[in-house]
Amino acid sequence: MISETTPPDFLQKFIETRAYSVTLCEPLNAEDYIPQPRDFASPPKWHLAHTTWFFEEMILSKYVADYIVFHPKFSFLFNSYYQTIGDRAVRAERGAITRPNVDEVYAYRDYVNEHMCRLLTAKPSQAVLALVELGIHHEQQHQELLLTDLKHTFSLNPIFPVYRTDFNLVDTVNQTDGWLRIEEGLYEIGYEGDGFCFDNELGKHTVFLPSFEISKSLVTNGAFIEFMEDGGYETFSYWLDKGWTWVREQQISRPLYWYKIEGKWYHYTLAGLVPVKMDAILSHISFYEAHAFATWKGMRLPTEFEWEAAASKMNWGQRWEWTYSAYLPYPGFKIDDGAVGEYNGKFMLDQLVLRGSSVATPAGHERITYRNFFPANTRWQFNGIRLVK
Amino acid sequence: MISETTPPDFLQKFIETRAYSVTLCEPLNAEDYIPQPRDFASPPKWHLAHTTWFFEEMILSKYVADYIVFHPKFSFLFNSYYQTIGDRAVRAERGAITRPNVDEVYAYRDYVNEHMCRLLTAKPSQAVLALVELGIHHEQQHQELLLTDLKHTFSLNPIFPVYRTDFNLVDTVNQTDGWLRIEEGLYEIGYEGDGFCFDNELGKHTVFLPSFEISKSLVTNGAFIEFMEDGGYETFSYWLDKGWTWVREQQISRPLYWYKIEGKWYHYTLAGLVPVKMDAILSHISFYEAHAFATWKGMRLPTEFEWEAAASKMNWGQRWEWTYSAYLPYPGFKIDDGAVGEYNGKFMLDQLVLRGSSVATPAGHERITYRNFFPANTRWQFNGIRLVK
Amino acid sequence: MISETTPPDFLQKFIETRAYSVTLCEPLNAEDYIPQPRDFASPPKWHLAHTTWFFEEMILSKYVADYIVFHPKFSFLFNSYYQTIGDRAVRAERGAITRPNVDEVYAYRDYVNEHMCRLLTAKPSQAVLALVELGIHHEQQHQELLLTDLKHTFSLNPIFPVYRTDFNLVDTVNQTDGWLRIEEGLYEIGYEGDGFCFDNELGKHTVFLPSFEISKSLVTNGAFIEFMEDGGYETFSYWLDKGWTWVREQQISRPLYWYKIEGKWYHYTLAGLVPVKMDAILSHISFYEAHAFATWKGMRLPTEFEWEAAASKMNWGQRWEWTYSAYLPYPGFKIDDGAVGEYNGKFMLDQLVLRGSSVATPAGHERITYRNFFPANTRWQFNGIRLVK
Amino acid sequence: MISETTPPDFLQKFIETRAYSVTLCEPLNAEDYIPQPRDFASPPKWHLAHTTWFFEEMILSKYVADYIVFHPKFSFLFNSYYQTIGDRAVRAERGAITRPNVDEVYAYRDYVNEHMCRLLTAKPSQAVLALVELGIHHEQQHQELLLTDLKHTFSLNPIFPVYRTDFNLVDTVNQTDGWLRIEEGLYEIGYEGDGFCFDNELGKHTVFLPSFEISKSLVTNGAFIEFMEDGGYETFSYWLDKGWTWVREQQISRPLYWYKIEGKWYHYTLAGLVPVKMDAILSHISFYEAHAFATWKGMRLPTEFEWEAAASKMNWGQRWEWTYSAYLPYPGFKIDDGAVGEYNGKFMLDQLVLRGSSVATPAGHERITYRNFFPANTRWQFNGIRLVK
Repeated sequence: MISETTPPDFLQKFIETRAYSVTLCEPLNAEDYIPQPRDFASPPKWHLAHTTWFFEEMILSKYVADYIVFHPKFSFLFNSYYQTIGDRAVRAERGAITRPNVDEVYAYRDYVNEHMCRLLTAKPSQAVLALVELGIHHEQQHQELLLTDLKHTFSLNPIFPVYRTDFNLVDTVNQTDGWLRIEEGLYEIGYEGDGFCFDNELGKHTVFLPSFEISKSLVTNGAFIEFMEDGGYETFSYWLDKGWTWVREQQISRPLYWYKIEGKWYHYTLAGLVPVKMDAILSHISFYEAHAFATWKGMRLPTEFEWEAAASKMNWGQRWEWTYSAYLPYPGFKIDDGAVGEYNGKFMLDQLVLRGSSVATPAGHERITYRNFFPANTRWQFNGIRLVK
Repeated sequence: MISETTPPDFLQKFIETRAYSVTLCEPLNAEDYIPQPRDFASPPKWHLAHTTWFFEEMILSKYVADYIVFHPKFSFLFNSYYQTIGDRAVRAERGAITRPNVDEVYAYRDYVNEHMCRLLTAKPSQAVLALVELGIHHEQQHQELLLTDLKHTFSLNPIFPVYRTDFNLVDTVNQTDGWLRIEEGLYEIGYEGDGFCFDNELGKHTVFLPSFEISKSLVTNGAFIEFMEDGGYETFSYWLDKGWTWVREQQISRPLYWYKIEGKWYHYTLAGLVPVKMDAILSHISFYEAHAFATWKGMRLPTEFEWEAAASKMNWGQRWEWTYSAYLPYPGFKIDDGAVGEYNGKFMLDQLVLRGSSVATPAGHERITYRNFFPANTRWQFNGIRLVK
Repeated sequence: MISETTPPDFLQKFIETRAYSVTLCEPLNAEDYIPQPRDFASPPKWHLAHTTWFFEEMILSKYVADYIVFHPKFSFLFNSYYQTIGDRAVRAERGAITRPNVDEVYAYRDYVNEHMCRLLTAKPSQAVLALVELGIHHEQQHQELLLTDLKHTFSLNPIFPVYRTDFNLVDTVNQTDGWLRIEEGLYEIGYEGDGFCFDNELGKHTVFLPSFEISKSLVTNGAFIEFMEDGGYETFSYWLDKGWTWVREQQISRPLYWYKIEGKWYHYTLAGLVPVKMDAILSHISFYEAHAFATWKGMRLPTEFEWEAAASKMNWGQRWEWTYSAYLPYPGFKIDDGAVGEYNGKFMLDQLVLRGSSVATPAGHERITYRNFFPANTRWQFNGIRLVK
Repeated sequence: MISETTPPDFLQKFIETRAYSVTLCEPLNAEDYIPQPRDFASPPKWHLAHTTWFFEEMILSKYVADYIVFHPKFSFLFNSYYQTIGDRAVRAERGAITRPNVDEVYAYRDYVNEHMCRLLTAKPSQAVLALVELGIHHEQQHQELLLTDLKHTFSLNPIFPVYRTDFNLVDTVNQTDGWLRIEEGLYEIGYEGDGFCFDNELGKHTVFLPSFEISKSLVTNGAFIEFMEDGGYETFSYWLDKGWTWVREQQISRPLYWYKIEGKWYHYTLAGLVPVKMDAILSHISFYEAHAFATWKGMRLPTEFEWEAAASKMNWGQRWEWTYSAYLPYPGFKIDDGAVGEYNGKFMLDQLVLRGSSVATPAGHERITYRNFFPANTRWQFNGIRLVK
């Protein structure tokens, strides 16, 4: 899981990654750092502190002899799931934590950054470097969540706040049409190499795939509006059983963040409310909707293995692409001992794999073998649809 | 409902009341203004804005000819229940409203204050003065809620934030022992006079009461600990049916904000975590607990009529005192037409009356005929117990 | 609470009451005795067994020296709330208890009846007679519940089963129009005398009432349809806050058991589906609907004291009449020690008093001082509306 | 999906299968046919009627020219999920359907049986025979559910009813120890042949498997008690995240139907309460428990492909064996048009595959390629654990 990048690069990469989190927060007021309106979305302040806590708890406290923690309670306040490390603040109550305030969290970041830079300058061990690299990728994950969570919080405000007027993220077009044929055969799946990967991408293994054709482009807003106008949300036969229940109980009739105003479709974006472009790539739909759309089309979603087998021959990276593969361990998958081991394996049930990356993913974080995962009803990520026939 | 206080006093009272809301917020960071961790508790920023909205919506917009609202969306963001005035922001989502930010809300207050002062200086009509007086009392209600809501938010933070070190509010002692006997007879209940009262205190009416004895003092922490140590929370027979369900389902075993640390009781207060004083007055208990305690004692809670008949002869004002009276209309009660009419009558079901006032009630807001009301499970107010035998 | 009826009458009354329960079940198949589709509605078999259990547990086991219980587990299976008597079968699971089967429950009834008759023939003590009388009235209460619960179970069956074709219970008309004026003054409330009453009707006490006018008749189906057609269910201002939430969340738009078929209103009755008669008395509405209807009319519901003060001068008995009085203890009310003491007092919170009696109430069970009580959303009883102005 | 069995065999198989459902109900009273205490468990009467409805609706009504349905409402009362066929009775309300009664349902069965026998004697088309075969297997599925549902209903009765004293089903021992090694390679998965299979077993396809060792025996009660006594239910690290939430929220600490009485373990069986035999095969555990047990052992559960690759070389059939494979479509899976098409595909989300068959599975219903499926918290089936290392 450790890449062979040399130490100087680690220092540089660490500094850049840490700085990018701060850059993302530049448009925010102190007030914007606080809310957690849904359990699944954490406050910006928490993302800033939690990613910092990772470096302090997993590296500085363990590998720097005389390290003094910034604040004895922060470990409790800003860990996440890692139940092997003492009690944790209740996940659903993160929005009540106004203190430490934003300035104190930035001071916490500075303090940990300084100690980390000192450590990285001093030729740390391979074990430390492996954790640093994990910490960097961990922070990149939270950079994407920071944006999607903020978008969700802002979306609940009836005045539709603007994060950055030049940052709507959803109007990407630029797609290649057509279908890509992949032949039947044995394919190698999973990560192997000297770069970084998460534990759930290991170990590389062989799968046998029948032939299939996969679309070179993702489904557009216009295509999804056709589905809607054809009664897609009201037609039982397109939906999985749980999807149909979801549609009716939650009264779903459009993608998340969409509004129909005087007969025209708009979506709320980080740049405010903007018209829906027909040829832009659809976003913010659940697996249920992705599956129903594919059924309506007489097609289907790819499996994660099909996606990986085809990925090198097609463009991807605008949306997290729903696959019809459950998030399960690869052969030989083993949960690490200790807190880091809780990273991924615990969640391998009742979630679906999404492949690719999205417009909100930090540059350099994407990987062909990357396995993102969410429950089927997830919509607040930049999720999209790629079809297979 | 309109008092005969003359206009100059109104101006003075308006200015003082508005200033006191700001004073209460002095110890807060911008971050503290935001959270709404429970539906029942609103953010400080919302309290500041909502009380301002009342003056703008009910008075300035209606009675000042050329008045221009501060912001066209604020009416939507900061109204409360008043469904007769357009849509309202969902009550449970107040914690997601980071914008307008705190500074903008203070600007809103200044703008409305200025226009109100101009209006009050210009000999307004009796109708306006009646609304101003209502607005002042409305703001006082929210001043108390601001403190109790803030305490609740802070209590969810594992580091137990301090609002003001000199403001714990719960260590009041100073009580007179003994029992007060009230004789059988006819008593006049409800408000009559030239001061202010809420609609639910009207009209004055006669009730017949049998004789009873009422305690001159409120139940202390020490007395409640006796109940706890005698198995009070585990003994079915002391509890109403709904109370017993509540105790078991919520796993209640102590007053809200209490913690047992190394064998000693502490409570979280606005001054942080402090030891429980045995002779101080108990606070933060539900009606269920109040009723169970009284049953355990072989006594009972007063009715609101008994309380009012005895009030002039005893000390009160440290805690809201639970009565065993449902919150129902007095004879002849009539809901006003229009938005102000929604003030109280809508809530006259499945709530209990609390009488008196609390250490968090702004000076001058208390009244012998005052009827506060909450559901039986309410604990985040400064509620206490007075016994009758 | 013990009436002075002499023992022979008790024997006669006991036999008649026990026989009437059996009569009520004559139209039932074995299958009909089983379901409990909602927590609030118990199966017929449970009613038959529970009322029998009362006589066995409270009288035979305590007062008959060598009495052997019919089955050692029945005490556990067929008690109700009485938590002072060991564990009880979970209330919501009564519908899973297929064994003992119906025949065994009838054998249980016969066995207990025989022992009770023997006891009643042998000059029992006053203490026993008081319990017998309580048991008789207890069984009468369950006779009414048996009918209302059965109606509810049958109503969930899409083929609308018929209990008895001559037993629709809701088409009663026969009302006197006009208003009855009651003058201001002191009135005596509560039971006093040598007959039977429940503990919640004691003790007799004085109340002062302002003058009022009360309708001589109950609201008809036709009048309620006017309310519906005038948008009653869609108009916020008619409803209490909790009522409005209830209407929207439960999507309520008509009385329980009503169906609109090809433009005409029908209701499901124990005689099957029948057309709604315009001049028949409305039934199966919640307190919320009763209150909203009265508000729409510009009138109000009576208090329970007003009802009792007027009752001797008006006809009542077709419907349980909602009052706007919370179910609370009368002055001096004291919960009995022991299991019988759990009868009523435990439930004195968040319920409303209904006065009168209904078409389903066994003859002789009604009483001017009788206090029935249910939560505000209760609709499966034969509830109706009487207005006051 | 149609087997090549000749018509006479179909008639024989039809008669036998239909008779076996009746045999299973012989120990029941009329009352036992009614309850549905949980949404997932249907009443015996419903199973009898629903399996009959399948033959009437899918075959007789479509393929017999002058066929008159037994009762026009039964199609509505006794269909299940098949939403393409009109409205259906709400699944959760099956326990309220006392009428038609048990005798009428048996008359329904006789009527349909007679018409089916007539049809089968008259050289029906291949299309009809395919549906008959499907109907037979459908009824066998419901025979197993009838037993597991009945066990669940009976288990809620505090007197632990006995279905048949010779039918406890859980004390099977007779296992072979040791491990079976399966080599890396390509394996054929899925059904191919001239017998019957369900749509979810098609089409046959190739998978590549790494080598593994699979246990020849299932986990015993004794082994599971070791897990329990080693703190298995209290140790976070053994559990998937959702499993840990389930254990704590549902307060799970033992297999379903287990009771500890005076220090010894008992389980409730269809023969009543019996002691747990240490060397008998464990049953009634969820996927969560199966996974936690395997983790505690340092092993894992098989995938469904591993299971199928090994099945011909090992004994199976006592328990449904949890696999760590999500229930997803095989390559080329296609949902049929029409009502039969809703059979399986709708449910391919958030469920796990179980392989093998159980002691409650009717003889002849099991198949190496059979894919049973349930959500991870399912315990009322006869589920067991087979380990892989």
